[in-house]
Amino acid sequence: MGNFMNISKKIDESKLTIAENIIIIREKHQQVAEIMKEENIECWMIVVRETASNPDPIQNLVISGELVWISAFIFSNKDNKFRKTAIVGNFDVPAQQRKGIWDEVIGYKKGISAILQPFLNQLNPKSIALNYSETDVVADGLSHGLFEVLKKMLPEFVDRFQSAEKIIQKLRGRKTSNEIAFINEACQITDKINHSISSQISIGMTETEIYDLFQQEMQKYGVSHAWLAEHCPMVDAGPDKVVGHTGPLSTQITKLHNTLHNDFGVKYHGYCSDIQRMWFFGTKDEIPEELIHAFETVKTAIKKASEFIHPGVRGFEVDEIARKYVTSQGYEEFGHALGHQVGTAAHDGGILLGPLWERYGEAPKGIIEIDNVFTLELEVKTAHYGIVSLEEMIQITQNGCKFFLTPQQEWWCITKNKG
Amino acid sequence: MGNFMNISKKIDESKLTIAENIIIIREKHQQVAEIMKEENIECWMIVVRETASNPDPIQNLVISGELVWISAFIFSNKDNKFRKTAIVGNFDVPAQQRKGIWDEVIGYKKGISAILQPFLNQLNPKSIALNYSETDVVADGLSHGLFEVLKKMLPEFVDRFQSAEKIIQKLRGRKTSNEIAFINEACQITDKINHSISSQISIGMTETEIYDLFQQEMQKYGVSHAWLAEHCPMVDAGPDKVVGHTGPLSTQITKLHNTLHNDFGVKYHGYCSDIQRMWFFGTKDEIPEELIHAFETVKTAIKKASEFIHPGVRGFEVDEIARKYVTSQGYEEFGHALGHQVGTAAHDGGILLGPLWERYGEAPKGIIEIDNVFTLELEVKTAHYGIVSLEEMIQITQNGCKFFLTPQQEWWCITKNKG
Repeated sequence: MGNFMNISKKIDESKLTIAENIIIIREKHQQVAEIMKEENIECWMIVVRETASNPDPIQNLVISGELVWISAFIFSNKDNKFRKTAIVGNFDVPAQQRKGIWDEVIGYKKGISAILQPFLNQLNPKSIALNYSETDVVADGLSHGLFEVLKKMLPEFVDRFQSAEKIIQKLRGRKTSNEIAFINEACQITDKINHSISSQISIGMTETEIYDLFQQEMQKYGVSHAWLAEHCPMVDAGPDKVVGHTGPLSTQITKLHNTLHNDFGVKYHGYCSDIQRMWFFGTKDEIPEELIHAFETVKTAIKKASEFIHPGVRGFEVDEIARKYVTSQGYEEFGHALGHQVGTAAHDGGILLGPLWERYGEAPKGIIEIDNVFTLELEVKTAHYGIVSLEEMIQITQNGCKFFLTPQQEWWCITKNKG
Repeated sequence: MGNFMNISKKIDESKLTIAENIIIIREKHQQVAEIMKEENIECWMIVVRETASNPDPIQNLVISGELVWISAFIFSNKDNKFRKTAIVGNFDVPAQQRKGIWDEVIGYKKGISAILQPFLNQLNPKSIALNYSETDVVADGLSHGLFEVLKKMLPEFVDRFQSAEKIIQKLRGRKTSNEIAFINEACQITDKINHSISSQISIGMTETEIYDLFQQEMQKYGVSHAWLAEHCPMVDAGPDKVVGHTGPLSTQITKLHNTLHNDFGVKYHGYCSDIQRMWFFGTKDEIPEELIHAFETVKTAIKKASEFIHPGVRGFEVDEIARKYVTSQGYEEFGHALGHQVGTAAHDGGILLGPLWERYGEAPKGIIEIDNVFTLELEVKTAHYGIVSLEEMIQITQNGCKFFLTPQQEWWCITKNKG
């Protein structure tokens, strides 16, 4: 099968293999035990059904594979004993057993309630954490209909239901060494592609043409899009592109003495990158003062935030550092959060490096932990050249943070004309 | 970009293109208008957020693309006026407008409630259908946390909330001509691959080796797996494979005078196939009577069900035809439903051709409609050779049904030995 493996390798490096997934799940299960102790939660129950159509965002980190009938995965922590139980339809039993990640796999034939009710009666937990959250979308995997099913199935436990958002936020946020390795590789590939594109861009190309170059490069590396393909990467030829979640336009043409911006991320073995870079069309000497000042401001704001951030501070405190610096330099403040977490999703949920705006709810109040992975990103508006925007990615370390890539230090210049 | 398009075509025929998606959405929006009239529902509201992490199973059929902030898509039908409104975060406005599928796209900056509340006040619908369902997973896309957000945001409308399951069941079930075309192509490719594999299999290969051949063929056609790759196809070398949702085993070896079974589906432009086929290792003359009888029974049960089914009958009535025939032939009845719908998911939800067992809830009571797509599948257990199982796919027509592929008529024989 050597030949097949080669084809497979070239074509798809975007997905985690089953073996890799099991390794990460084992690391995550250890974290679940620690977090449940920290949060004093006796029972976390993940309930899913037909996950091929309606998955829970957390399942790839703690379950793996697909489930057909209604299934309950119960992490319990009572009398200092951590136990992991899978209760699944009988057809799903062999697959779950073979993973070797559960202390027990219990199958049922007719209905799950005949197993689940006595199981919970015996466990008798103070509370049962379920995957619903008003504020954190990645902790909100339990559908409303299924919640109603649980209410009817477990009437005596309804008043013990609570949100599992604290478990999920910490669990997604604390990247394991394998998760960091995949995120790092996604960043390195993103950087290689950006550099390769630099040598292929010419003045006069349309946004769509540049977008297509990125697609070719992604295919070479066998990676997929970190977000919707339609606008990954976003390609924005200055100065007059409408800002927003829009794709590249075939009508938007790059011009001499203008800028090019992209927001680009790849998915490598299931993990994402999310990086913004900027180019100037012309020589270094031709860069106008306005663009130099804007670039320095964005770069310095990111640097200041990175020098400040460390475990124990809250998200909004980091955002404030960059936000204040930008306004001190005479720019309008940016209309979004300074940074979000990155993991299996480009927007990985949980704690946000954002301002205390109503829109962001509780997310900016969370406390930053070691091995969280964040973006640091912001834009400033210039009077004549549109926006200047950069985005870097950092890993939180014991005393601060480190960048996955060297931050962009200066404008990348393109002088080649479209031939 | 000619060269790039070639690469792209070979590599990925599995996904619907954006243009194709828009065409299907237009067809589906017309169906929404019809169904809301039939069901006398004045307002259907789909509410989503960060769909890249937490999608609604119905969104690809009626929205397309990804949404970041909380978004509401409202289909209203009042005073005989059908209207389609998208209320989305301001960054998502340009992308939604460019699709040209909404009568109006309204953006918001700070929070959706300032737009949504007055909109619903003005519409003043008798009821608001939301995507939650206790029984139908594909109609259960609204997460519980988001439901709680809606309750708080729209207190005066809470008593008008109702399940949208009737809309979604009909909408997913009534395949449009373009949907049928993609499903048909998925079936044709599945058949071509099964035939190609027939010429490559030899006696003595392991299940894993045969599974790998399928992966190679899928890459040639650029299609992806209709369900979890791990067990797509399921490859079962008789007679002693444990039945269930398990993948192929490298320890399970095909043997002379035994059987091989597969359950295989591909995804082509977002639409699935789901087909089971069986092989016998040996010559036609060597097939034992026991296997001939079992095969004829399964084939005839499928034929009888296909001759009976037509618009207006209920799912369980069709199941009964096949189930009674199988037991009349001296076999134990099969432990699953006779058929499920197929569409963007291999298990597409909605009405089921199933028995009235508790496990299947209301799904078998639904009324079959024209242009529904179902599987007809069943297995019988033989005393010495394991299971004999076939699965075909049909489209419901005005007076009956038609098969996408010619049903398997006899055992496919393999006589080649592993060299």
